[in-house]
Amino acid sequence: MIAISDRVRFVETDLMGVVHHANYLRWFEMGRVAYLRAAGVELNELMAAGYIFPITEVQCKYKNSAKFDDEFEIQTTMLAFSKAKMNFSYAVVRKGDGLVLAEGKTQNVFTNMAGKITRLTDEYYNKIASLYDQERSVTTK
Amino acid sequence: MIAISDRVRFVETDLMGVVHHANYLRWFEMGRVAYLRAAGVELNELMAAGYIFPITEVQCKYKNSAKFDDEFEIQTTMLAFSKAKMNFSYAVVRKGDGLVLAEGKTQNVFTNMAGKITRLTDEYYNKIASLYDQERSVTTK
Amino acid sequence: MIAISDRVRFVETDLMGVVHHANYLRWFEMGRVAYLRAAGVELNELMAAGYIFPITEVQCKYKNSAKFDDEFEIQTTMLAFSKAKMNFSYAVVRKGDGLVLAEGKTQNVFTNMAGKITRLTDEYYNKIASLYDQERSVTTK
Amino acid sequence: MIAISDRVRFVETDLMGVVHHANYLRWFEMGRVAYLRAAGVELNELMAAGYIFPITEVQCKYKNSAKFDDEFEIQTTMLAFSKAKMNFSYAVVRKGDGLVLAEGKTQNVFTNMAGKITRLTDEYYNKIASLYDQERSVTTK
Repeated sequence: MIAISDRVRFVETDLMGVVHHANYLRWFEMGRVAYLRAAGVELNELMAAGYIFPITEVQCKYKNSAKFDDEFEIQTTMLAFSKAKMNFSYAVVRKGDGLVLAEGKTQNVFTNMAGKITRLTDEYYNKIASLYDQERSVTTK
Repeated sequence: MIAISDRVRFVETDLMGVVHHANYLRWFEMGRVAYLRAAGVELNELMAAGYIFPITEVQCKYKNSAKFDDEFEIQTTMLAFSKAKMNFSYAVVRKGDGLVLAEGKTQNVFTNMAGKITRLTDEYYNKIASLYDQERSVTTK
Repeated sequence: MIAISDRVRFVETDLMGVVHHANYLRWFEMGRVAYLRAAGVELNELMAAGYIFPITEVQCKYKNSAKFDDEFEIQTTMLAFSKAKMNFSYAVVRKGDGLVLAEGKTQNVFTNMAGKITRLTDEYYNKIASLYDQERSVTTK
Repeated sequence: MIAISDRVRFVETDLMGVVHHANYLRWFEMGRVAYLRAAGVELNELMAAGYIFPITEVQCKYKNSAKFDDEFEIQTTMLAFSKAKMNFSYAVVRKGDGLVLAEGKTQNVFTNMAGKITRLTDEYYNKIASLYDQERSVTTK
């Protein structure tokens, strides 16, 4: 599990006084970026190599409301990985008391610039697989 | 099914050249507002009456990319309804050719301002139930 | 002056209970798109022709708060125009009572994909200049 | 000058491949929050005390495009301060090479929950004035 921290922005709230639910998808995205970075893969590099990685599926369960200025952690875990797609799960957790704010899952595929499904080269695949395997061995021990 | 139309805003795109996936949750929300309005219930009125209606769950499957300036329809259907919660499904469809861009589901509960689960009064319940029943009878005929 | 109408989205509010001020820039953008469309120029076409039109300057004065579900009009006027840049002014006005919510100005330049300042071809220039001239003659009569 | 750092989010880009210009207003807001925090004033506390602080004016000049994943600094300086309003200026600067991405200014007033212009109590005023004076003395030395 790769964790990053951030703080709720004012603009992320809505008139119910809490974080608007769509923002969690943006936070999940930040978690994915951090996960791939931890694996040694920069999204800018992937795009320069001609890859695009559209989201094909997302789900989120909202457990507790986040408020303006709350500090939170985005915890990202890879659930499944192949040269054609990536599945992640996420927990957004309030710092301090560890309250779970939301949990979610996403699926990305890899495509080329024309939108055609594409497979990762070994270079990228091996970097990501290496972190994925290492994380799984930690979890299942 | 209640349908509203809109057009992709420039700001809704991202550097992959298509609509960022988080925007679909905003569009679903517009669909819910329109559904309740069609039932004679304004969200501003509900809030003035002390109700809040946080999203507890959302899921979305992305079928095809939406592009800047695409005209689309948000089609909203109520899946389940009680005094304590509402479940909706949505299809976002490109105008002109009817291509399905995304499909999703949400669940809302009703709470009071303090976040405590609350039940709708008969007045609101009956208005929404009336549209829900009417829609279901159309669908199942 | 070219006018389009829209309605405040729930997601556009913040915890002060009114529209977050950054959204007005998105609305101005919608006004620009509508203005150019009225001139017969589609942004998608301009981009396909290799033009990019980054904002170089924006200003906005906020007069009155917009609330969730308010219907409003974005009124867009071209202030200055050359083959190298466009200046617009905007008023966002609440429907019904005509209350001015905000007024603003923007400047765009034209660049190529590499970010180099570029000049519009006559084809695009003439279309936009034609609407600009027509509008000015109406205003100054 | 109070500085905070962040990184461009994927969702903050648009189809021109760079950060959408409206995001800078969100970044300025983060800068203001940080400035007030440095003065010992939390916005949540101000709101709990019945203050609202709507933006009445904003301007921004865009100097260079920010790209996805760029690390940047938001540098916030208070330009003027009274019990009735605050004026700030901002520079958004790319880390590493110090390239200025944008510069801007904002004005906030203080109102009560009903939107009526209000003056800060001495408690809040003195905290903010103390940082403001300290910063100005540094600048003018």
